[in-house]
Amino acid sequence: MKGKLIYGQSGGPSPVINASAYGVIKEALKYDEITDIYVMKNGIEGLLQGEFYTFDEFEDQLELLPFTPASAFGSCRHKMKDPKNDDREYQVLLDFFIANNIRYFFYNGGNDSMDTCMKISDFVKENGYEMSVIGIPKTIDNDLPFTDHTPGFASAAKFIANTVMQLKLDSVVYPTGKVTIVEIMGRHAGWLTASAHLAHLEELGPDLVYLPENPFDTEDFFIDVARIYREKKQCFICVSEGIKNKEGQFIGSLNQFEDAFGHTQLGGVAMYLGDILEDKLGMKYRAIELSTIQRSASYVRGKRDIEEAIKVGTYGVQQAIQEETGKMVIIKRVSDTPYTVEYEMHDVSQIANMEKVIPQEFMLNDNKMSKAFFDYMIPLVEGEEVKPYNNGLQKFFNLNKKSN
Amino acid sequence: MKGKLIYGQSGGPSPVINASAYGVIKEALKYDEITDIYVMKNGIEGLLQGEFYTFDEFEDQLELLPFTPASAFGSCRHKMKDPKNDDREYQVLLDFFIANNIRYFFYNGGNDSMDTCMKISDFVKENGYEMSVIGIPKTIDNDLPFTDHTPGFASAAKFIANTVMQLKLDSVVYPTGKVTIVEIMGRHAGWLTASAHLAHLEELGPDLVYLPENPFDTEDFFIDVARIYREKKQCFICVSEGIKNKEGQFIGSLNQFEDAFGHTQLGGVAMYLGDILEDKLGMKYRAIELSTIQRSASYVRGKRDIEEAIKVGTYGVQQAIQEETGKMVIIKRVSDTPYTVEYEMHDVSQIANMEKVIPQEFMLNDNKMSKAFFDYMIPLVEGEEVKPYNNGLQKFFNLNKKSN
Repeated sequence: MKGKLIYGQSGGPSPVINASAYGVIKEALKYDEITDIYVMKNGIEGLLQGEFYTFDEFEDQLELLPFTPASAFGSCRHKMKDPKNDDREYQVLLDFFIANNIRYFFYNGGNDSMDTCMKISDFVKENGYEMSVIGIPKTIDNDLPFTDHTPGFASAAKFIANTVMQLKLDSVVYPTGKVTIVEIMGRHAGWLTASAHLAHLEELGPDLVYLPENPFDTEDFFIDVARIYREKKQCFICVSEGIKNKEGQFIGSLNQFEDAFGHTQLGGVAMYLGDILEDKLGMKYRAIELSTIQRSASYVRGKRDIEEAIKVGTYGVQQAIQEETGKMVIIKRVSDTPYTVEYEMHDVSQIANMEKVIPQEFMLNDNKMSKAFFDYMIPLVEGEEVKPYNNGLQKFFNLNKKSN
Repeated sequence: MKGKLIYGQSGGPSPVINASAYGVIKEALKYDEITDIYVMKNGIEGLLQGEFYTFDEFEDQLELLPFTPASAFGSCRHKMKDPKNDDREYQVLLDFFIANNIRYFFYNGGNDSMDTCMKISDFVKENGYEMSVIGIPKTIDNDLPFTDHTPGFASAAKFIANTVMQLKLDSVVYPTGKVTIVEIMGRHAGWLTASAHLAHLEELGPDLVYLPENPFDTEDFFIDVARIYREKKQCFICVSEGIKNKEGQFIGSLNQFEDAFGHTQLGGVAMYLGDILEDKLGMKYRAIELSTIQRSASYVRGKRDIEEAIKVGTYGVQQAIQEETGKMVIIKRVSDTPYTVEYEMHDVSQIANMEKVIPQEFMLNDNKMSKAFFDYMIPLVEGEEVKPYNNGLQKFFNLNKKSN
């Protein structure tokens, strides 16, 4: 099969998704079967408008891609319709594939992106168009099934663990009492919040952790915070943005407040928990939202995470050349010590729209993770990369750069 | 003069204040004149309660001090009274100095801490007690006069510039329009907020910057944001927490909102600016408060900043041995290229309670800094340190650690 390869990024940014882009592109350059490389602008959403980058538009910056966090080519959160009900978008794409002789379609994302892969793969097959459709995993949330972990997770987890340590050092500087509440991403799976537990290895871990896997109980929360505060005059809490009460309501959705202009706004979970502590127990608090930096930080990425992110791209291309299609690259862990993994392909249809939460054997309770959890996590986060700097600033791939 | 040295940390934490502690302690160990080393627990506030650490309590972790951000020995915001009106605290301290034969008093902090140095120096002198009182500069705000810059500033500035770059990469990932507003520390001087301008060197700088040095005008703000948003469908704003309107009111103080429990709370500036954009121009926004991480981040500290932080401590001890007193160590820049500095002593009385804002020649306007600014900044932030890690976690000096 000879033709062009198109690659796209989808869903939330990650610290290493561009390393996967690098893996795909560098490997693609090796094969005669791949005649040219296009990259979607803002994923499938841009492609539907006919927007893409050609290789010569970014070739000069290629070697900076693996060092660059976020989604260098733009992303989208476009949900493809069921083609049985409405196949207009699929027709647009098929016309594009035919007109440009696209024979390799790579889509880099999470659950929703694998849904897109599945639907496009099915549609082109039904229409007799030969094209290899390959999913490349990416998500800081680590919630894709079948793969041991997802590229991006380890770097975000490492950032969170190191950030919690630094915030903890800062939080105990003054002898005056204060509760610190750090809000961490992960709406359904608590992997990122749980990674705050790694800080315990250096005795700078949080006092309390709240994961979305377990229902949040306000009364228990009061009792736990009061107990710790009485002892230490401090309490350091990490909470997932996705915690729910036992009725299944997001705690964050309860935090409706009126802004300075009289509009109702939705605050975060951290602020809400702080407000109830202040209201009921008269405690002072500091709410810290790690916000978008946790998905796009490149300060302390995992060295292995970057290498694996490249490798899933490389491996995907090797499999596409062998005419694999409708599959996502997965990582299989062979052993913890020494850390060894293998790469395999898995049907996207089994991955699309599925979610992997933290297994029970990793949690003794919200506030204590098992040895199995640490055995799983440590190989992912250990090892540091060496980054290029210029004038004290990290050097990044940047399509808006006028000069290089 | 032969006797003990006591060292204390005061005011806000910084990424390199512990490097200064390291400099003082390591140099102090070299002299027969210094018979022992104590460190105040929570600065002068702890000392007034008789709380301090002895050298053997932290000796085993000493080599980790320079790598550790925040204030490893605890800090305080204790303002000493005028001894003419109330000298009770001074008497407590003098009794402690005499009882323990303290002959070297080192206090590490900003303007307020130099006020403490000045008052203690004067008081012991008037009471005929010989003791060398030395101020060691520290503040991420860079607002101390007479010194070219303060240890801690460069590391915080470097963190902010790199963070702005990463947040900027993240902010343009989706094609949907959004305003991003990053709130940065610095209540009176805009040095830290201005350091966001460094990101322009990599063409990832903010679209708009608001410094406390210049009055904030809401109408101009609307016009500027609307213009940029029309062109890019994005607008990236950095704002100092300390901006004021031309009546001199803090903009942040206007952001009073009612929380979910009906209590009036004070929000940040970023949230306020976002709310008015939403209210008046119907724009969506994301407010990001860098919060305490900006004063305690050790991800990307300045290599020179760490070296200089150690050196101000070392130099202070050398001067104390020569019986200097009532002075703070200052850094004098000899040249930008090659970057060369000298260390000198300066009367604390001229530094106490004074503030250095950004000079006019550094600002073309809020949104454009001059060449002189970049010439000043670049040597401070360039150069990266190599840090110790364990299991992917930075290794820190930590007095709460049970085992080492």
